[in-house]
Amino acid sequence: MATLGLIEYNDASRDVRAVYDDIMATRKTDWINNFWKALAHDPVTLKRTWEDIKQIMGPGALDPLIKEMIYVAVSVSNQCDYCIASHTVSAQKKGMTDAMFKELMAVVGMANETNRLVAGYQVEIDEQFKPGR
Amino acid sequence: MATLGLIEYNDASRDVRAVYDDIMATRKTDWINNFWKALAHDPVTLKRTWEDIKQIMGPGALDPLIKEMIYVAVSVSNQCDYCIASHTVSAQKKGMTDAMFKELMAVVGMANETNRLVAGYQVEIDEQFKPGR
Amino acid sequence: MATLGLIEYNDASRDVRAVYDDIMATRKTDWINNFWKALAHDPVTLKRTWEDIKQIMGPGALDPLIKEMIYVAVSVSNQCDYCIASHTVSAQKKGMTDAMFKELMAVVGMANETNRLVAGYQVEIDEQFKPGR
Amino acid sequence: MATLGLIEYNDASRDVRAVYDDIMATRKTDWINNFWKALAHDPVTLKRTWEDIKQIMGPGALDPLIKEMIYVAVSVSNQCDYCIASHTVSAQKKGMTDAMFKELMAVVGMANETNRLVAGYQVEIDEQFKPGR
Amino acid sequence: MATLGLIEYNDASRDVRAVYDDIMATRKTDWINNFWKALAHDPVTLKRTWEDIKQIMGPGALDPLIKEMIYVAVSVSNQCDYCIASHTVSAQKKGMTDAMFKELMAVVGMANETNRLVAGYQVEIDEQFKPGR
Amino acid sequence: MATLGLIEYNDASRDVRAVYDDIMATRKTDWINNFWKALAHDPVTLKRTWEDIKQIMGPGALDPLIKEMIYVAVSVSNQCDYCIASHTVSAQKKGMTDAMFKELMAVVGMANETNRLVAGYQVEIDEQFKPGR
Repeated sequence: MATLGLIEYNDASRDVRAVYDDIMATRKTDWINNFWKALAHDPVTLKRTWEDIKQIMGPGALDPLIKEMIYVAVSVSNQCDYCIASHTVSAQKKGMTDAMFKELMAVVGMANETNRLVAGYQVEIDEQFKPGR
Repeated sequence: MATLGLIEYNDASRDVRAVYDDIMATRKTDWINNFWKALAHDPVTLKRTWEDIKQIMGPGALDPLIKEMIYVAVSVSNQCDYCIASHTVSAQKKGMTDAMFKELMAVVGMANETNRLVAGYQVEIDEQFKPGR
Repeated sequence: MATLGLIEYNDASRDVRAVYDDIMATRKTDWINNFWKALAHDPVTLKRTWEDIKQIMGPGALDPLIKEMIYVAVSVSNQCDYCIASHTVSAQKKGMTDAMFKELMAVVGMANETNRLVAGYQVEIDEQFKPGR
Repeated sequence: MATLGLIEYNDASRDVRAVYDDIMATRKTDWINNFWKALAHDPVTLKRTWEDIKQIMGPGALDPLIKEMIYVAVSVSNQCDYCIASHTVSAQKKGMTDAMFKELMAVVGMANETNRLVAGYQVEIDEQFKPGR
Repeated sequence: MATLGLIEYNDASRDVRAVYDDIMATRKTDWINNFWKALAHDPVTLKRTWEDIKQIMGPGALDPLIKEMIYVAVSVSNQCDYCIASHTVSAQKKGMTDAMFKELMAVVGMANETNRLVAGYQVEIDEQFKPGR
Repeated sequence: MATLGLIEYNDASRDVRAVYDDIMATRKTDWINNFWKALAHDPVTLKRTWEDIKQIMGPGALDPLIKEMIYVAVSVSNQCDYCIASHTVSAQKKGMTDAMFKELMAVVGMANETNRLVAGYQVEIDEQFKPGR
């Protein structure tokens, strides 16, 4: 469930269906995951979020698989269970092997550790790392 | 500066120097950044952290550049200024172009946004996303 | 359940009952939610937390509904499922419409996104934004 | 400064200038703050972010001032110094009094406290708070 | 500086001075740090926060030094620079040695790492760890 | 369950069993919790993480019980349900009383509150708190 419930395709307005259709066509699948069905209560946000994701997660200077793994890294740092579950599956579908997943986790764990060591030791930024040099 | 100050090479113990030497040799550089100089107050943690990072960030199923960008993604989500500055420079040295950086930021921003939309709408995990299926 | 279990009214000490009574009287309801029943193991913290919340969330320069929505915004950013669920219901009871909820979510999502864009791009604070000017 | 530097109006491309112009016109001001000048390195993200913010932060079911205070609440929870500084000024311009600011801070502080009490006491969600009931 | 400026003793109201006096007497010191001078704009929050801290951080089942180190651990996880700086000094004054500080940092770093490994691997809670068993 | 499933002792490789054996011997127990069974998919990370934890959480300048409570404090701040559940049990086994747990929670809650008050009021670090003075 979700705060306002989930809007299924058959109950969706024309605008929402258009987004659902584009999601399914883009992903070459015949189902819609709960995130979109919950967001469908706000058709403007639904459309905006989907179009942003579609553009941002598509091919570019970075491979879509890499982008999906970055999404997982952020979701893990934020402890978002839904996002971890859904984007891990997406990454697997785009080619993430178990070996890649394990390395991804190792990097995320290490980064979260050193982020705090830096903070706790109150380390100042080296001149060499400052932007504009 | 840092909580306990920074330990320069000339003031470092034999154990610490060994780590500094390995850092410089591995990175093909002749300087040590503040993080290690602060951590040097705790030679056990210094050695452990460096060896972990060296192993984790090295080549494997994921390219070192990709790992560095994941490090940036996590550091940005955690608002760790030092880590953002240092790992952005590291990523650039390993080949991150401006185009790649911008896409990285776009993904990190989007993930942080949808992580909260999912939480706020209290979206339940789809059966299809649950592990062990 | 909760770490130390939940303390029901009938099993509560005189001090705890006094807080429970005040919660029910203030909220014009006849039940106590789990948060308070868990906190009741520590009567000092129970009393202090309830009195703080009662004072802070009451009418003032900001409307209680606005305060409740701010509570939701923070809880969403912190991924606190219990707090999201309970304060969303509280906000609805105080008059939050679906339209207001959706806008609240949109703002929270956007803020979480730009918070990271700012961090990742390492944007310095404009002179115009610095306090004391 | 910023990772890739700041793009001033005179050095900006036509697309970027169009966004800058719209920002200044919408805000009835003659300057652009650093966030946009940093984001201008990525004209697509600049345009998308500005249009999203313009739409989301505008009038609707919630007053623009309320939205600005929610933005501050999120930024404070995320420890984003830039965002706190800039959105506090924006909120003040939109009418946030000192009294409102102080209440906002009190709510944000309290929410961050109870979010952790709930987590630490491992409080289960009451049936009454579950969505779909 | 701070958003609303800092209120010095000589400019403080009678209520604020009473809190300042109690802080100095309790801490056996003759100065007030910026946090209180900023909070003094909201005398109610100033008084409440000081009294809470005084009660919570005092002797009890846990030693005040241990409490101060827990405060540092939380502040490091939250990347609150001010809080890290001030509570590290407080902990040192209460007897935290360099050896204790280093172990504190190692634990905080490790906890932040494994918190994310758990999330990323989507580990379910063992029956043995569930409350109420 | 977990992303890649759980590896039981009987299905584990020689390397993984060696770690499992050491965990059980060190903890004087005959079972392995899910975290390790999930991490066992990555024997290198399993071994490294266990050895780090074993070293860091052992006796030193800080008592193992204190370290366990610091672990809980961090896990609560990060909203990691699994870590809260498991380390709370560990702390209890090492001697954490209910009174100690309640004070721990009070400190963690308070720290999370003041971390945000400091951020929101944009309080500058006092000269007296800066490292290297």
